[in-house]
Amino acid sequence: MSKPTSTEIRLASRPTGWPTPENFETATVQLPDLAEGEVRVSNEYLSVDPYMRGRMNDAKSYAAPYALGEVMTGAAVGEVVESRAKGIALGDKVLHHLGWRSVSQGPAAAFRVVQEISGVPLSAYMGILGMTAYTAYVGLLEIARLKEGDIVFISGAAGAVGSAAGQIARLKGAARVIGSAGTDKKVALLKDKYGFDAAFNYKDAPVLEQLRAAAPEGIDVYFDNVGGDHLEAALSVFNRDGRAALCGSISSYNATEAPAGPRNMGNLITQGLSLKGYTVGFHPGLFPDFVKDMSAWLDSGEVVFEETVIEGLENAVHGFLELMRGANTGKMVIKL
Amino acid sequence: MSKPTSTEIRLASRPTGWPTPENFETATVQLPDLAEGEVRVSNEYLSVDPYMRGRMNDAKSYAAPYALGEVMTGAAVGEVVESRAKGIALGDKVLHHLGWRSVSQGPAAAFRVVQEISGVPLSAYMGILGMTAYTAYVGLLEIARLKEGDIVFISGAAGAVGSAAGQIARLKGAARVIGSAGTDKKVALLKDKYGFDAAFNYKDAPVLEQLRAAAPEGIDVYFDNVGGDHLEAALSVFNRDGRAALCGSISSYNATEAPAGPRNMGNLITQGLSLKGYTVGFHPGLFPDFVKDMSAWLDSGEVVFEETVIEGLENAVHGFLELMRGANTGKMVIKL
Repeated sequence: MSKPTSTEIRLASRPTGWPTPENFETATVQLPDLAEGEVRVSNEYLSVDPYMRGRMNDAKSYAAPYALGEVMTGAAVGEVVESRAKGIALGDKVLHHLGWRSVSQGPAAAFRVVQEISGVPLSAYMGILGMTAYTAYVGLLEIARLKEGDIVFISGAAGAVGSAAGQIARLKGAARVIGSAGTDKKVALLKDKYGFDAAFNYKDAPVLEQLRAAAPEGIDVYFDNVGGDHLEAALSVFNRDGRAALCGSISSYNATEAPAGPRNMGNLITQGLSLKGYTVGFHPGLFPDFVKDMSAWLDSGEVVFEETVIEGLENAVHGFLELMRGANTGKMVIKL
Repeated sequence: MSKPTSTEIRLASRPTGWPTPENFETATVQLPDLAEGEVRVSNEYLSVDPYMRGRMNDAKSYAAPYALGEVMTGAAVGEVVESRAKGIALGDKVLHHLGWRSVSQGPAAAFRVVQEISGVPLSAYMGILGMTAYTAYVGLLEIARLKEGDIVFISGAAGAVGSAAGQIARLKGAARVIGSAGTDKKVALLKDKYGFDAAFNYKDAPVLEQLRAAAPEGIDVYFDNVGGDHLEAALSVFNRDGRAALCGSISSYNATEAPAGPRNMGNLITQGLSLKGYTVGFHPGLFPDFVKDMSAWLDSGEVVFEETVIEGLENAVHGFLELMRGANTGKMVIKL
């Protein structure tokens, strides 16, 4: 029997501005035999996420940068095809963070066995039941301290985090939820599928103008996935004591020059506003609450979700680049 | 006996950019007889404060803008020269907010009787014992949630709020307190008089460069009186979970164009930073603690303060404009 192999995608060089396929390399490696306590997993879905762009830079951040030659690590789910670990059996479905490769193996502690839920794809453990939606949950409840009756604005609202945030805000008592997105189709989805009270296409007219029209009574909470003019607009329509959870700033991830900041920072003082940035890894405390809430919401149909599925490991880089351009609706995953 | 009069300074027109003397007008008015429950006060000191610049604009803010023709209101202290109110006697020293005029009168509720403390001028009730130092206290303790061991950076540190903030930070357990100011004389004062561990003249070299040198281990708390490049520099040297209290942004008060914001807002996300703006009027809760702490610190000599005294109501406008240019050390007051 020939030795098992894994095909993996590595960071080949650091991008300046927008990444290109040349920044990545694909290689097939032979896998060693499993040691005692290890498992081997045939991956079914890989996650591509905006935060990965930051790790491609050689810059101080919350997560260490990818080393050159390192596999693009990130969330993945698959099926156990060989196990020398107690408690993980052949055929178990597992979640892990070993990234963009066809087969992953390592110590059992690197893998978490998940239960398949009828009607919910396994990939949901990387999305609506996983880190993505938990990011929305933490941002609203712990960072922005959402209160009942708040008016909430979410940018990048048709993305995986944004669409979860909009639904969580509604279910946690927001009086009104407003979203922005970059295509008319996404805007329709926000209103018709995700239950946003108002939504606009930020490419149609200046964000500030559209946000003022959508939020005539101002906003209390801003969940920021975008940065740039969205953040500046939010600072201009905040009510007193407004709170922003800064989750992402996809408008600047591929910029080659430092983007200008909001020109209205003075509003923080006059309106008593707070801006708080975060990354979910530093806020694990609400995860049990999240799992309980989200499982119930999925079960009752109060939360719905979409995925944009790209087929084939060889298309992972393409999918990642499309994600940066906003081609996804909901969570983007690579299906192997 | 001729009717008593009061000379007052009013807002005559709204400035664009830097105010000029032409934006103000002086008038002498006859005062009506006191009604039952009213007092008349001969003012001894008037306060000039940076926040007054904001009220000269016709813009939404925490305090309503001054109306055209309205007296420049703000803190003042004086002596009661006539009283028809129970509990306020002739000769009492009182604090009030009726602003730039020689004589103030009104219902007793608008005046607070203060006790003269030996060695402390009456004007201290507008400064180190009043709103100014309380602003520093609230900013550090309630807004920035100063913890023992924090490294603290204060901009505009030789001003009335900044010099109080530096001393309060030290007395509340900061591991290291760093200040910036705009003259070498002020920098020397920060180190020699107010006990800052390090200080620099922001005009000598880029703020970021000087702050990095002064804070090789980064900063945990930033108390911002300045905005602009100071805020941007702070965002670049913050340690994880850094917290900024945004108290003022004197660098932009007289700007005619909206100033560019920090180009490194993304650090909020990667470092988990929070920026919170505030104005002291919305945070009255710590005032009793402040009075207790500050009275003890003044008594023990652990807190010291300076005043820049300008003589004469006719020089109030001049003093206010000089304050904007940073000509003051510590609290600027107008002595009548």
